[in-house]
Amino acid sequence: MNAPTQTRHAQPDLKPRPAPPALLAALQKRFGAQLSTAQAVREQHGRDESAFTTVPPPEAVVFAESTLDVADAVRLCAEYRVPVIPYGVGSSLEGHLLAVQGGISLDVSRMNQVLAVNAEDLTVTVQPGVTRKQLNEQIKSTGLFFPIDPGADASLGGMAATRASGTNAVRYGTMRENVLALEVVTAQGEVIRTGTRARKSSAGYDLTRLFVGSEGTLGVITQVTLRIYPLPEAVSAAICTFDTIADAVNTVIQTIQLGVPIARVELIDAKTVAMVNRHAELSLHEGHMLLMEFHGSPASVKEQAETVQDIAREHQGADFQWADTPEERTRLWTARHNAYFAAVQSRPGCRAISTDTCVPISRLADCLLDSVTEADASGLTYFLVGHVGDGNFHFGYLIDPDSAQERATAEALNHQLVARAIAMQGTCSGEHGVGLHKMGFLVDEAGEGAVAMMRTLKQALDPLNIMNPGKVFAL
Amino acid sequence: MNAPTQTRHAQPDLKPRPAPPALLAALQKRFGAQLSTAQAVREQHGRDESAFTTVPPPEAVVFAESTLDVADAVRLCAEYRVPVIPYGVGSSLEGHLLAVQGGISLDVSRMNQVLAVNAEDLTVTVQPGVTRKQLNEQIKSTGLFFPIDPGADASLGGMAATRASGTNAVRYGTMRENVLALEVVTAQGEVIRTGTRARKSSAGYDLTRLFVGSEGTLGVITQVTLRIYPLPEAVSAAICTFDTIADAVNTVIQTIQLGVPIARVELIDAKTVAMVNRHAELSLHEGHMLLMEFHGSPASVKEQAETVQDIAREHQGADFQWADTPEERTRLWTARHNAYFAAVQSRPGCRAISTDTCVPISRLADCLLDSVTEADASGLTYFLVGHVGDGNFHFGYLIDPDSAQERATAEALNHQLVARAIAMQGTCSGEHGVGLHKMGFLVDEAGEGAVAMMRTLKQALDPLNIMNPGKVFAL
Repeated sequence: MNAPTQTRHAQPDLKPRPAPPALLAALQKRFGAQLSTAQAVREQHGRDESAFTTVPPPEAVVFAESTLDVADAVRLCAEYRVPVIPYGVGSSLEGHLLAVQGGISLDVSRMNQVLAVNAEDLTVTVQPGVTRKQLNEQIKSTGLFFPIDPGADASLGGMAATRASGTNAVRYGTMRENVLALEVVTAQGEVIRTGTRARKSSAGYDLTRLFVGSEGTLGVITQVTLRIYPLPEAVSAAICTFDTIADAVNTVIQTIQLGVPIARVELIDAKTVAMVNRHAELSLHEGHMLLMEFHGSPASVKEQAETVQDIAREHQGADFQWADTPEERTRLWTARHNAYFAAVQSRPGCRAISTDTCVPISRLADCLLDSVTEADASGLTYFLVGHVGDGNFHFGYLIDPDSAQERATAEALNHQLVARAIAMQGTCSGEHGVGLHKMGFLVDEAGEGAVAMMRTLKQALDPLNIMNPGKVFAL
Repeated sequence: MNAPTQTRHAQPDLKPRPAPPALLAALQKRFGAQLSTAQAVREQHGRDESAFTTVPPPEAVVFAESTLDVADAVRLCAEYRVPVIPYGVGSSLEGHLLAVQGGISLDVSRMNQVLAVNAEDLTVTVQPGVTRKQLNEQIKSTGLFFPIDPGADASLGGMAATRASGTNAVRYGTMRENVLALEVVTAQGEVIRTGTRARKSSAGYDLTRLFVGSEGTLGVITQVTLRIYPLPEAVSAAICTFDTIADAVNTVIQTIQLGVPIARVELIDAKTVAMVNRHAELSLHEGHMLLMEFHGSPASVKEQAETVQDIAREHQGADFQWADTPEERTRLWTARHNAYFAAVQSRPGCRAISTDTCVPISRLADCLLDSVTEADASGLTYFLVGHVGDGNFHFGYLIDPDSAQERATAEALNHQLVARAIAMQGTCSGEHGVGLHKMGFLVDEAGEGAVAMMRTLKQALDPLNIMNPGKVFAL
């Protein structure tokens, strides 16, 4: 393995801006019991699912219950030039929530109302703390659903802020395509709306898409208007296993190139299937697995499934198992979604360093296979899952957080993988965002000029640099 | 008709910034025969398809042949603080191309190369002067196509700049969803790329979407990477007529709400069908017409068509005619695309003032019918067509351009329609952009705060205000 001369992952550059006692007093006065400075609460809000070693937690946590609460908290922090870090459910993977420059965590999880269900228009408007599962539970009776499923039961505000996607994106798109409009509290504490409920618009700059994926660095999302979809008349899921990753991936590539409107197609490599079996006491065949789902009319689902089955057979796919009842499907998808936890529990005390590259579909096999070879050679334990229909996959290198050597090896693997993906005209981050972890990679991918433009936008909208500072790019 | 107290359409506020002779000399030296100051060329570049009365044309036209040409032209204009107005094929409808502050027209129509066809990835990369028809001609042999069809054979750079859509958007989305990445020359004359060829990405701010729909006010688009799609295995088109617009629209609403993946569904009102008949010597039944197209496998197309036929029958749809051969389909769609010209030719010497509202689908019937009542009461001749599957429709009021009274009546109708659409949580512009014509409406729709944010972004990226100044919003 040719280790790069430097990895892109130094530990975060800490530049705390202490909150003056006057700010804490003003917050206390305004928010009373909605403010917490308890150590445990602060610590819970100062970390996420990333593998960064501990950074000092935020100095306080404000539990916002309304847009006005958010606006007032931001205005007070602006007055004292103290950072504000929006917080949903804490499921970020890239260090988004860490208080690298100190500041206040602004927890919006209590803003958890579904404000409007416009079933006839296939739209909903929610507060940012509503989670995707909560939303689907609340709209179930309408026969509609929100498809974006990143695995974790993330908040919809957080999903918008990181431009999340997940297993259904191959058919339904990502948060980029499914957020119609936002309400946002700006860095000045003003409230704006970024769009309407029309399906399309050419009216002015696309502020919605500017905030989707801005990772809390431009403002705080306080409402999200989303597209929802009719529950498909028929749903069918299937698993199929392959002796080689190449066969599995080539099945996917051909499916996408043929334009089959597959709803989900996930890769789980054989080692990860074994971890899932142990964790969930399942007996899945421990080959490289594709987990697929088809949505549509009964005839269309049958037709899609037959097409993909034919393609899979051409690539030596075997052990096709169908799951046509909701219970069977839930069992399969739960296994998929638990892959991360199954993997982490396979090595007690470990942390996972996740990769998130996404490449054009024609390069998926090359990118994946070379990276598997490198990971195998490194000696690290890892899991491998992928939203392969989009060209997106995740290695999770399972490291002993106290081993500098293992961390360096994992970061070097990640670095090589990202360099490969960028050379293939792909991206360092398909869906997790940049956060702290991919700041260096963003420059590699987008170039200094594009990052300079992002920096200009940030400085224009947040001249005091209070909105989640120290993330996405260095100022 | 309650005319609003003021219309939002004053004539453009002219603030010419004359190009100093030194700039024209420098452009002449750099561009030689690629520069034209001929009156006819300037006049051709100083107008579009909008109904604005004449504004003085740009002072010169640069015919760029490369990204370097664009960068050099922008740098020279920046040096002298003279406006730059990007120009594709001139098919804008909202005054985008008018030199309201003087300046240089930057014609990119010679940048018309398809740079890369990545058929396996379903992407292409083109120069901005490639038109949509040219692209489809050039990729025909791959079995793939680019679906976005605004009617005019617009340039893809221009379509990106106005966030265009058109007849296929109900299934395939708009330029917002189908532009993967851009190369852009900034207002400083620097070249950046805004994305990769990955289908999705969470890597940093969405610069692609910031430039899509920016109407030339933030920079010049010099390359466009687009999603393309497999040509559907089966295509079927149909027309169906209705006695009332309400029946036609309710057919559409129900089709969309059921989640039928219809590829196109266009409304043409009875008067407009009559105009089309006269213009194209057709004998279409002169009722309110839906023109539909279904894409998919043969079985899926059949199923979709049957579903929609059932819905239409419930709403007294009659005269279903199917067009299964490419020739028959082309005849129907040509009739649709010629509706604009058929209408304009129905009143010699007239200009059309186009509306472009888009509303949530549940409000479509209300919005349309009230506006038809108002238009009928006004006494103006008009045409009415709509991409009704998206909730988007266009009235074209046919006015005598020399009649201030007719113009005022048309603008008042437009104003009432926009106010209605905004009250219904819709937009003043579904696909034509803001340009000059909808600047006032943008404020009504987005609010002062959001427009102030757009202004801040513009000032940050183009501090000299040279990029197509005086459009979208006032500075």
